[in-house]
Amino acid sequence: MNAISRLFTPRSVAVIGASADAGKTAGRPVAYLRKHGFTGAIYPVNPRVDSIGGLRCYPDIASLPEAPDVAMICLGAERANQAVRELAEKGAAAAIVLASGYGETGEAGQRRQRELQDAAGTMRILGPNTIGLVNLTDDIPLSASGALEMDRFPTGAVGLVSQSGGILGALLSRAAARGIGMSKLVSTSNEVDLELADFIDHLVDDEATRVIALYVEAVRNPGKFRAACLRAAEAGKPVVAFKIGRSEAGARAAVSHTGAMAGADRMYDALFRQVGVIRAQTFADFLDIPAGLATGRRLAGRRVAILTSTGGAGTLVSDALGVSGFETPAPDEVTADRLRALQSGDEAALDRNPIDVTLAGLKPDLLRGAINALLDSPTYDALVVIVGSSALAMPELMVGAIKDCMANSGKPILAYVSPHAPNLVTLLNESGVPAYTAPESCAAVLDALLRASAPATGTTTAMPTSSPVSLDDLPSGSLDEAQAKALFARFGVPGVRERVVATPEEAAAAAGELGERVVLKILSGEITHKSDVGGVAVGVSAGAVAGRLREMAGEVTMRAGATPERFLVQEMVTGGTEIILGLHRDPLGTAILLGMGGVLAELFKDTTLRLVPPGGLDRAEALAMIRELKSWPLLDGYRGRPKGDVDALADAVAAFSQLAAQLGDRLVEAEINPVFVLPAGQGVKAADGVAVIGH
Amino acid sequence: MNAISRLFTPRSVAVIGASADAGKTAGRPVAYLRKHGFTGAIYPVNPRVDSIGGLRCYPDIASLPEAPDVAMICLGAERANQAVRELAEKGAAAAIVLASGYGETGEAGQRRQRELQDAAGTMRILGPNTIGLVNLTDDIPLSASGALEMDRFPTGAVGLVSQSGGILGALLSRAAARGIGMSKLVSTSNEVDLELADFIDHLVDDEATRVIALYVEAVRNPGKFRAACLRAAEAGKPVVAFKIGRSEAGARAAVSHTGAMAGADRMYDALFRQVGVIRAQTFADFLDIPAGLATGRRLAGRRVAILTSTGGAGTLVSDALGVSGFETPAPDEVTADRLRALQSGDEAALDRNPIDVTLAGLKPDLLRGAINALLDSPTYDALVVIVGSSALAMPELMVGAIKDCMANSGKPILAYVSPHAPNLVTLLNESGVPAYTAPESCAAVLDALLRASAPATGTTTAMPTSSPVSLDDLPSGSLDEAQAKALFARFGVPGVRERVVATPEEAAAAAGELGERVVLKILSGEITHKSDVGGVAVGVSAGAVAGRLREMAGEVTMRAGATPERFLVQEMVTGGTEIILGLHRDPLGTAILLGMGGVLAELFKDTTLRLVPPGGLDRAEALAMIRELKSWPLLDGYRGRPKGDVDALADAVAAFSQLAAQLGDRLVEAEINPVFVLPAGQGVKAADGVAVIGH
Repeated sequence: MNAISRLFTPRSVAVIGASADAGKTAGRPVAYLRKHGFTGAIYPVNPRVDSIGGLRCYPDIASLPEAPDVAMICLGAERANQAVRELAEKGAAAAIVLASGYGETGEAGQRRQRELQDAAGTMRILGPNTIGLVNLTDDIPLSASGALEMDRFPTGAVGLVSQSGGILGALLSRAAARGIGMSKLVSTSNEVDLELADFIDHLVDDEATRVIALYVEAVRNPGKFRAACLRAAEAGKPVVAFKIGRSEAGARAAVSHTGAMAGADRMYDALFRQVGVIRAQTFADFLDIPAGLATGRRLAGRRVAILTSTGGAGTLVSDALGVSGFETPAPDEVTADRLRALQSGDEAALDRNPIDVTLAGLKPDLLRGAINALLDSPTYDALVVIVGSSALAMPELMVGAIKDCMANSGKPILAYVSPHAPNLVTLLNESGVPAYTAPESCAAVLDALLRASAPATGTTTAMPTSSPVSLDDLPSGSLDEAQAKALFARFGVPGVRERVVATPEEAAAAAGELGERVVLKILSGEITHKSDVGGVAVGVSAGAVAGRLREMAGEVTMRAGATPERFLVQEMVTGGTEIILGLHRDPLGTAILLGMGGVLAELFKDTTLRLVPPGGLDRAEALAMIRELKSWPLLDGYRGRPKGDVDALADAVAAFSQLAAQLGDRLVEAEINPVFVLPAGQGVKAADGVAVIGH
Repeated sequence: MNAISRLFTPRSVAVIGASADAGKTAGRPVAYLRKHGFTGAIYPVNPRVDSIGGLRCYPDIASLPEAPDVAMICLGAERANQAVRELAEKGAAAAIVLASGYGETGEAGQRRQRELQDAAGTMRILGPNTIGLVNLTDDIPLSASGALEMDRFPTGAVGLVSQSGGILGALLSRAAARGIGMSKLVSTSNEVDLELADFIDHLVDDEATRVIALYVEAVRNPGKFRAACLRAAEAGKPVVAFKIGRSEAGARAAVSHTGAMAGADRMYDALFRQVGVIRAQTFADFLDIPAGLATGRRLAGRRVAILTSTGGAGTLVSDALGVSGFETPAPDEVTADRLRALQSGDEAALDRNPIDVTLAGLKPDLLRGAINALLDSPTYDALVVIVGSSALAMPELMVGAIKDCMANSGKPILAYVSPHAPNLVTLLNESGVPAYTAPESCAAVLDALLRASAPATGTTTAMPTSSPVSLDDLPSGSLDEAQAKALFARFGVPGVRERVVATPEEAAAAAGELGERVVLKILSGEITHKSDVGGVAVGVSAGAVAGRLREMAGEVTMRAGATPERFLVQEMVTGGTEIILGLHRDPLGTAILLGMGGVLAELFKDTTLRLVPPGGLDRAEALAMIRELKSWPLLDGYRGRPKGDVDALADAVAAFSQLAAQLGDRLVEAEINPVFVLPAGQGVKAADGVAVIGH
């Protein structure tokens, strides 16, 4: 058994600094271990008392009868570090450090945290500043969370890894109250040693866990995180994340809370998407979605039947589903006949969806028949049963009827409980029927089910097959435009035709080869904003280019204080769509940014991004990026425009990403702005570019 | 007392078709009236029993001892209509018709609904297809809602008008469980007579009601609705609406539910905004926001203090507030000193926000001191207190501490309850401290508080002062472009300079007056898509215009099958920003639509709209529309562009709306596309336009 397994299922637990007063935080770990039936050895350590709750208490770590699997340390930070050193020497597998006053509190705390790391040696550390962990599968609470005051917790398939201890406690109590079963909960907090990815890995291998929920303040080790999430995807265990730090205010608060710098939120969106993690948009979703995924059912499509015995709530759910892009088609003929055979009364309401079976709200057999008819119907991919106030009078019978039907079909069934009826919600969840009280939750859960059921895209682990490009003679520093485009071209992004010239005569000659009208620019590795100093002229006729060069040289000399020695004469590109392709470096990794050009697209922030995986993006992912642009129709023949060469653009995006992947940290900056996307079959052309190469 | 007042506070209630079996729906009204302590006379009517629950039962309506204030009718539709006729003859003030099978079920039902209306005469009707109403202020339940099985309901300041009976029941039970006090609840459903606006009006005058909540499927009478909402705004009573039918699926379901056609959702956004109604975005918001507004407190700004004794939840709320544009600044010096004086321990956590006072979670006096310090601080406009699990051990003390502080400040205070603790939520709400369990709710409530506190904009009741334009010689039918622009110009929207010509020679002469290059178009009231038939030429030089006219005449003849007899020669406008100004007619009213021109803006659906009030929009509202455009920066000097003449555009928008207001239903269609907005000081110019005038 590795140290993390011993951490979750220890045979022995020492509690360092245990208090005999169960009302104090330091008194809780021993009290909770006993209350929830831990069957291993418990060793309280406290020099001031002889026994705690009938257990022998040890004066110090040295006197413990064995090296414990796990030690929970309830001491303040300074003494905790000393205890960790002694436990490591004693040979404990892991220690849980509850104390705060470490990395989250400034310089002195950061020093203390480094000392803690040193003290631990090879012993694993959970924390510091953690509330601990709770193994519900095996009734082992290693935590001081006040949520453990509750008497019982439903066990189930949701495993939680939280970077906040307070949130662990809140979710533990909220899930229990709703009958949502969890497997393991762990708070990683400062992550001096064990971190998010370690526990994702553990839960992938944990048989009791079917869904992994992550409360994220910051991913400290993106590479490890990525690998762990991809393992989870391969194992078919959906990962659902709630990430804070979405706003500047939240990011600041997160910094003060666990000492982690929050990366830009859009980068997290890209990261999650690329490793198959479903992002919860609201805190309610963060419990609702895992509960819905825990049944293991998968959703094949967007067509949902809504069965109701109360009009208003059915409409409410239907509306929320519609807003999220789900369809609620009327029953097919066969299904409508089956419903009619069950029901007396208003037949019209059976031809619609929501399917209103008022009587079924009072008769469990009718309800059972209606549910089975809808589950059998090829018209529907899922079913939402609206539970109205009529169920309050006979909760077991109504819930039993729904539960019975689950066995007859693999399609997802959700319940929406309309009146205030916490007992019904609990009963439903405990019966394996995910139950919700917000119509938007039903939509969020179905959406997550659909994503969890789709073959993972963007979770490419394979490297694209293209062989590495030779970089032997790569210049370094800030490249000039011609060098930058030559670099891009080496990877497969074609540039406009152009000539480097030094004199008016050379310019005139070059223009003669390039067309009737050309673009004239200064060429410089230093001046990146050429047009700001008068260094760009567009649409210059071949005959005028020599004169225009002299004029430009004069203006740039005056405005930039340096006389340009070289110029670029380029072909004029017309009839294309302007695209921007750029690079963004971030603590989470390097990302490629694709955007529509032009001032309006810039205003609408019409960009999309991807983290660059080792080996770069493949063509499919590049195409997905292009299609995500809000202005994608402009490339796709909108209102009779010619279609753009999207294939060539996808190749260019993939090539640009391979450049980024191959150069790694050496690529400090890179941007192609604009790339012209010509009509289909005519390719793309990089018209300007910047690259800065580090040494 | 008018009939609606008698409906809410009857001295006598007859229950027609009352059942002696309280388990049946028809048995509920009498049972609930007695259970919740109605002190007036109750007259059950049922020919088959002598008494119900000890009350004398009458065989028929004729034998009632008096005309009841209110009759609740528990009969099926056909018999209900007959009962209504008899009650009207007897002189009852109002009847509540519970039966379904009316307008919501198709043609036969619609006929039945008209018959019901006839039968009622001047007697007022609530319903049909209603669950009734509940007057909690006076303990008078006139409803068959199963939610009334609950024993007690907190009374308070939230009044609800719902177009769905099921939703009324759900909200009644949900509010009660959370300790949210309500005043009156009424379900209008089919609205054969009494409708949304009648009850808004009533609640504006109801002393117990401070906030009005509306569950809306469709506004059937926009004029009355508008007037009622504006009265509420004037009375300082915020109106909060949840509107379904946002999606096609939801609209379809709403149609089947209460028989109302749902208007386009964006029109509802405009309507709500213009009459000061706050729209709840989620169903949870629909209870959360009214509960937050019911305290009557107002919010002066966006700066919020978050006081917490548990790190994770404070960060969570801070993040949600940040996403919604709230600020969480650190405490000022004076406040930080006051906090430090209260607290021993980690002082650093007092210089931040969330303000982490771990000890205050255990000591009510400390909590009181910290709350008062933050409320007194000029740095904050509101306070969110995070209630952690430490409060579970002493709920009364903790809630009492927060409640005590409410009296010391008029600033809003909200509580966020982190663990599952329904008793704390109830206790807080009942103590007047709005309490929430979702971080997003705190943000939604603060946002609504800010809107409710701002002076109403767009709720113009006054007519703009401009005098009506003479329309004596207005042509009718489909106007040609010149006529349409002349009409717009009459109201104050200037057009481009242009001449109507018939021959190449006239065109050449006109072009000579209009500039070096001109636009040439055919002029026709029939052909509205001129460019589709080759009827538009842009940038024609004055010398070439005669020839171009001949060419155009030929092409249009070929493509449209009719020879154009008249043409327009127009000045070329350059350097302006293209805007679209249009009209949209809808069941809710006529709206003005303003949009940015160009293909990208069209793709991004960059438009905004307003319903046209009597007298048209004023200039301030026109300006607000312009500033709402996502591409507004293009008019505002984005990246060094010249600023557009926004004042002139606002005048044009207001003028266009006055045209719509004055012509009313006679204006069938109208569009100016494009309007060129020239640089500041140079005005706007309508370059093309369409108008269809009815007779």
